[in-house]
Amino acid sequence: MDVISVIRTKRDRGRLSDAQIDWVIDAYTRGEVADEQMSALAMAILLNGMEREEIARWTAAMIASGERMDFSALPRPTADKHSTGGVGDKITLPLAPLVAACGAAVPQLSGRGLGHTGGTLDKMESIPGWRALLSNDAMMDVLRSVGAVICAAGDGLAPADKKLYALRDVTGTVEAIPLIASSIMSKKIAEGTGSLVLDVKVGSGAFMKNLDDARELARTMVGLGTDHGVRTVALLTDMSTPLGLTAGNALEVRESVEVLAGGGPADVVELTLALAREMLDAAGLPDADPAGALADGSAMDHWRRMVAAQGGDPDAPLPVARERHTVTASASGVLTKLDAYAVGVAAWRLGAGRARKEDPVQAGAGVEMHAKPGDRVTAGAPLLTLHTDTPERFEYALGALDGDAIEITDTASVEPTPLILDRIA
Amino acid sequence: MDVISVIRTKRDRGRLSDAQIDWVIDAYTRGEVADEQMSALAMAILLNGMEREEIARWTAAMIASGERMDFSALPRPTADKHSTGGVGDKITLPLAPLVAACGAAVPQLSGRGLGHTGGTLDKMESIPGWRALLSNDAMMDVLRSVGAVICAAGDGLAPADKKLYALRDVTGTVEAIPLIASSIMSKKIAEGTGSLVLDVKVGSGAFMKNLDDARELARTMVGLGTDHGVRTVALLTDMSTPLGLTAGNALEVRESVEVLAGGGPADVVELTLALAREMLDAAGLPDADPAGALADGSAMDHWRRMVAAQGGDPDAPLPVARERHTVTASASGVLTKLDAYAVGVAAWRLGAGRARKEDPVQAGAGVEMHAKPGDRVTAGAPLLTLHTDTPERFEYALGALDGDAIEITDTASVEPTPLILDRIA
Repeated sequence: MDVISVIRTKRDRGRLSDAQIDWVIDAYTRGEVADEQMSALAMAILLNGMEREEIARWTAAMIASGERMDFSALPRPTADKHSTGGVGDKITLPLAPLVAACGAAVPQLSGRGLGHTGGTLDKMESIPGWRALLSNDAMMDVLRSVGAVICAAGDGLAPADKKLYALRDVTGTVEAIPLIASSIMSKKIAEGTGSLVLDVKVGSGAFMKNLDDARELARTMVGLGTDHGVRTVALLTDMSTPLGLTAGNALEVRESVEVLAGGGPADVVELTLALAREMLDAAGLPDADPAGALADGSAMDHWRRMVAAQGGDPDAPLPVARERHTVTASASGVLTKLDAYAVGVAAWRLGAGRARKEDPVQAGAGVEMHAKPGDRVTAGAPLLTLHTDTPERFEYALGALDGDAIEITDTASVEPTPLILDRIA
Repeated sequence: MDVISVIRTKRDRGRLSDAQIDWVIDAYTRGEVADEQMSALAMAILLNGMEREEIARWTAAMIASGERMDFSALPRPTADKHSTGGVGDKITLPLAPLVAACGAAVPQLSGRGLGHTGGTLDKMESIPGWRALLSNDAMMDVLRSVGAVICAAGDGLAPADKKLYALRDVTGTVEAIPLIASSIMSKKIAEGTGSLVLDVKVGSGAFMKNLDDARELARTMVGLGTDHGVRTVALLTDMSTPLGLTAGNALEVRESVEVLAGGGPADVVELTLALAREMLDAAGLPDADPAGALADGSAMDHWRRMVAAQGGDPDAPLPVARERHTVTASASGVLTKLDAYAVGVAAWRLGAGRARKEDPVQAGAGVEMHAKPGDRVTAGAPLLTLHTDTPERFEYALGALDGDAIEITDTASVEPTPLILDRIA
């Protein structure tokens, strides 16, 4: 087998054989296929596509590159959720303890943020004392005792994906549906969950800017999960405006705790409950009552125990940024647009995100929203509050909100955009 | 400027701006753009193409990455020839001294062979004492005193191309017409020739397997030369069967000397004269008489002086391989096919070529042909003689000639394929 013939096959719009896929993933993981060869292949895949069978084999080869976890010893069914990433998407935080409170085990192996979308681990790390790194044994202990764990994925899961993802990030080859789907699903399948609910984001703040691409990605991932024996469902959800009223690490923890306390923004509550129902259904617990678990405090109780199990203090005050800047409404009327991507970039520039993976993040930085599309606003009233420890970033962050990021219209009302756009099973 | 935006532009079928092209070539030469980024861009160029203006700018940026030679101090007009590479293509050897004998100066900066086509320097190095490496001053001296020089291109010419070519070779991105054209033309333009004749090969033994691709490549290169003030003409010539009756280093020198002595195979003589006439026309010497210069010995005289000027002994016996193996005709009839690619691979396997650029080549190895397509052959009579110093390679070389590489048909005659298929100016 030689790598140039593999590259040529895909370059010339051919179908990669099982043997070619197995070999190239293994040889790349071992370093026999060089980065410059894999990036040429990734670009050929991006431009010429892969058939379903090729994507399935590619995913299987990435799973086979590392270890596979096994939760079959747990007394509860496992259910996991994966979001393709959005602005203000803190749903994992209230969702994991909520689903645990309803009887499933939720192993949320999560990542850090890069670019304009935040990372679940970065958010959790704003809780004083909380640590992301757990051994496999410690993770199983938390799953047994609490039922939910949010922690860093070990290096042993799909190492081929880890290497390939870093390469795609620097070679303009991220946006390939076969590679996105196999990257997500190889990690989730290797993680060993019995059921999986995918939250595929659509809109300016998401990877997928339009519904057709998002549907194709969702179908591909649902197919991959099903083929590997994981009960998989996808919801397509709107990401044209941020989720909830906060984008930033500690800011989003605060909002998540509000949801667990029975309050919080309506869209965050709606999506948390919808995803919880899907996870519980997929896990074989269709009679569970997630709304009840929010109302009766059992979800909050699981949150507190989950945080404490990883060294966090659920009662400690959350970090607050040293400086604030208020953005006021430029006119009176209905807020018709608050662009997710613009808010994500602003939060990122304020210090909530990182430019390079070795950069630190600010726990208190981010954007707080005082209105969402559809709300009436008054000229001069606060629209956004920007938070940062480094006030020299305000101007840079405000630049992201220029142009058509915010629109206020002199109209009676606007038709609300539905949050959940489609369901693929 | 950042490389991912450049890659994305081409990936998404956009046109690279002048600033993007200048920056990416410079940054790649300096090592700021990594190999894995350039290979992704090369694959995107291969699959999505470049417009004429983009190719022109890309070529100009590669020229600007290094030094440019200047032959304006020479008392004669300069003319150069470049072949895209074929099996048995020794034309540079008789052509350079022939054109010098007719009054032009011929600076043939040449390369070594890699793969199934031989390299001009490898062929010349089979002449005892001859050396390929000359300083720029020594090269100018030979051009002044003899009028023709065949030597290695210095590292200072188009270093960006040197680096990019090595990358394309290992990433399946060689076969991109914009990249092939800009690679060839950047070196030739940087070399400073006033006129250039391109021999674009078409057929199994060539890069371009069909006439349409070859025409597109020829038009692209003629356009690039013209845009840079180099009078450029291309001939499209057949490479479905080897040129002449030899493929191998010393074997081809011997055949070239036969042509200079007024003999040699008809196809080699025809192409040598056709290219000489084009070069002399382009150099502003339309009244020169290359056929006369072959007949009256002046071309041979220039050959002997050119070889001697680089330390070679034109009277020394050429190396001969230690072992021979004869392939006989399997039937009587007309030889209707003797595949160029198969013969090239056989010669390469016998030791005439190299697998890696650091490998040595055997001076005496190669394939000698006793018939060409259109000739009558008799069952059992010698068809080919294989030459090598390492007889354990015979079987491996014969493998290349299996299948449909050689066809003998029971027919009265066959229509001869014309050697020169088209001319692009």
